[in-house]
Amino acid sequence: MRQTIQNLEESKIREVANAGLGRSDVLAFWFGESDEVTPDFIRQAAIDSLQQGETFYAHNLGLPELRQAIASTMTAVHASHPSATPITMERIAVTSGGVNALMLAVQALVDAGDDVVAVTPVWPNLTAQAQIMGANLRTVSLTPQTTGAYAGAWTLNLPQLLDSIRPGTQLLILNAPNNPTGWTLSREEQSAILSHCRSTGTWILADEVYENLYYADTPNGSAPSFLDIAVPDDRLVVVHSFSKSYLMTGWRLGWLVMPPSMTSAMGKLVEFNTSCASLFTQRAGNVALARRAEVTPRVVAQLKACRDTLIPALHSLPDVQVALPLGGMYAFFQLPGHTDSLSTAKRLVAEAGLGLAPGSAFAPEASGWLRWCFASKDLGRLTLGVERLGEWLKRG
Amino acid sequence: MRQTIQNLEESKIREVANAGLGRSDVLAFWFGESDEVTPDFIRQAAIDSLQQGETFYAHNLGLPELRQAIASTMTAVHASHPSATPITMERIAVTSGGVNALMLAVQALVDAGDDVVAVTPVWPNLTAQAQIMGANLRTVSLTPQTTGAYAGAWTLNLPQLLDSIRPGTQLLILNAPNNPTGWTLSREEQSAILSHCRSTGTWILADEVYENLYYADTPNGSAPSFLDIAVPDDRLVVVHSFSKSYLMTGWRLGWLVMPPSMTSAMGKLVEFNTSCASLFTQRAGNVALARRAEVTPRVVAQLKACRDTLIPALHSLPDVQVALPLGGMYAFFQLPGHTDSLSTAKRLVAEAGLGLAPGSAFAPEASGWLRWCFASKDLGRLTLGVERLGEWLKRG
Repeated sequence: MRQTIQNLEESKIREVANAGLGRSDVLAFWFGESDEVTPDFIRQAAIDSLQQGETFYAHNLGLPELRQAIASTMTAVHASHPSATPITMERIAVTSGGVNALMLAVQALVDAGDDVVAVTPVWPNLTAQAQIMGANLRTVSLTPQTTGAYAGAWTLNLPQLLDSIRPGTQLLILNAPNNPTGWTLSREEQSAILSHCRSTGTWILADEVYENLYYADTPNGSAPSFLDIAVPDDRLVVVHSFSKSYLMTGWRLGWLVMPPSMTSAMGKLVEFNTSCASLFTQRAGNVALARRAEVTPRVVAQLKACRDTLIPALHSLPDVQVALPLGGMYAFFQLPGHTDSLSTAKRLVAEAGLGLAPGSAFAPEASGWLRWCFASKDLGRLTLGVERLGEWLKRG
Repeated sequence: MRQTIQNLEESKIREVANAGLGRSDVLAFWFGESDEVTPDFIRQAAIDSLQQGETFYAHNLGLPELRQAIASTMTAVHASHPSATPITMERIAVTSGGVNALMLAVQALVDAGDDVVAVTPVWPNLTAQAQIMGANLRTVSLTPQTTGAYAGAWTLNLPQLLDSIRPGTQLLILNAPNNPTGWTLSREEQSAILSHCRSTGTWILADEVYENLYYADTPNGSAPSFLDIAVPDDRLVVVHSFSKSYLMTGWRLGWLVMPPSMTSAMGKLVEFNTSCASLFTQRAGNVALARRAEVTPRVVAQLKACRDTLIPALHSLPDVQVALPLGGMYAFFQLPGHTDSLSTAKRLVAEAGLGLAPGSAFAPEASGWLRWCFASKDLGRLTLGVERLGEWLKRG
């Protein structure tokens, strides 16, 4: 077996979750997933499709009407002003989840030995995929603010990032709004990055699956996106997912937006990886988009309520360092004196019945941090979790 | 974009099918898919799961009870004699289709520049995957018999294959029963290949998705399999799928059997490629295995009737060279004087209303051949297709 594959890190999140296996008394906030079932009308669309016998192979790039619906939705969010170029369906590929979209993009772009830069801390899948393809991976780290109004917030040193992207750098991997830190790129930062990558010939792979889970006031209800400023032919692939905004984690349905010149190659890569997403799953996605107004705003409002319950409660504990995330569904925080997050997270499971993800799962530099997924139907679960944490710290 | 990806061949099968788009008068036998919907009790299992709200992330390696059911089924077929080592569930990974299982195995095994050998003609996905990973791919071709009782049958030159596998050859890729030729490995050939690959340290990736679609009398109702003779620690990955034996093409559900030492790495690769197969899809697979006796024997009997309708009908046409396939669901045949199968296949669509796959889709050496998928509910469709072919040949 390849040494590269053996060297890939096992998920430290699963390592913590495994420590809590079979314990019903643990409040689990370790995975990036809401505890709410997919809305019934979305499930019904898949059931109808199954009952109608839609059990055959489907198009590599996705059902044309779903690609069109995605293109229309993306255009409405990112290219609605009259002078903008609409996002056309030829630029859309439907994939077996957001992670699959990311993997397909990396396969399209990364030869073994290629120079690839990723901004960390980040969901470990993003860096692992480039390693699977044999990339020479470098990371540029966000830095946590230690004092002032933004203490606990991780921020980008833009000049440092731009310096790291050189002619010959094949790919820049970004996830913003970011899992786990909640860091979000500003429009100005996106413009500077795009402009720099145009000059170096570097592709941008932007994981924007949390763009709808954004709590600042914006005209389009979304975080800043590279799609707002790029032209179709830019070396840019933007990845999305039905998982978070439509409560469809287990369905494994996502998409990507690519330059038109990549579409034919992407169709081949889908064929050679999974061939297609199941048609009944795509029907569900189509209904999710069509009835988006009944799902996403409610999901976002609930997550905002979760965030605004959890963060003040964490602030009320002595010496916990945490910033209000502008996007995503995670609180990322530090407990002073607890520098080994994997061991801390395991102790919290065993001693406090509280399930969190260790920061070291996302980057070595985050090993003093913990991630709390606040997607919870019941706000009381969050309050109870903070109480458990507070009591554990007192006993500490 | 990578040159390697741009160079991958577009599907010539789709090129022919596209030529027939929107023509309801074409009898389509181009894709490797039955025209029968998934049995209702399998669909119902997915519907029940969706109604119960199973819409969350699932295990990377698959639902434990499905892995166990697969292991038991594989043991019953391949290791049922008392002295055999049972195939344990730790050796099973559930994947998003057979093609996804193959891709995961190739990711686990092939570094860029690795020496990889594939036996052709073969389903093009198998060679494309190694190329995506940057392999140095060599092919060893089967040879069609031109005279005698086996005229039209493609057979293996075993010494030539063994000579091509050297110390340092990382991977041998085999698909038997074979798509498109129907060629099947004998037990003796499998033993010789396994023994040789043990001596060179070469991994074997055996695509055995057609093992149940086997028409010779065997004690286990299956084609010879490497699993019948290998030990758990052999460098062997065997890939299977629910698609053909359970009429579940569109579900994208498959599995692989691997050495126990690979399981942990495979869990990581699933996480980084698709994270998991949908739970409701896995529930359907579980019911398919549990009620296998109600599905697979009927599918195989119908395919045998299809084969035994199509092959004699083709033989009745002047000068068509075709052998009776022992396994699979394809007739692979040659029309004398028609050496460019892509052009022939396109002409057959346009001039005869008959949709076949061109041999050149599977290997350059098969460019005089055509593949006919005989999986058809209605035997009359096959007879009608042969009539159309016969009339077209007469018009010549």
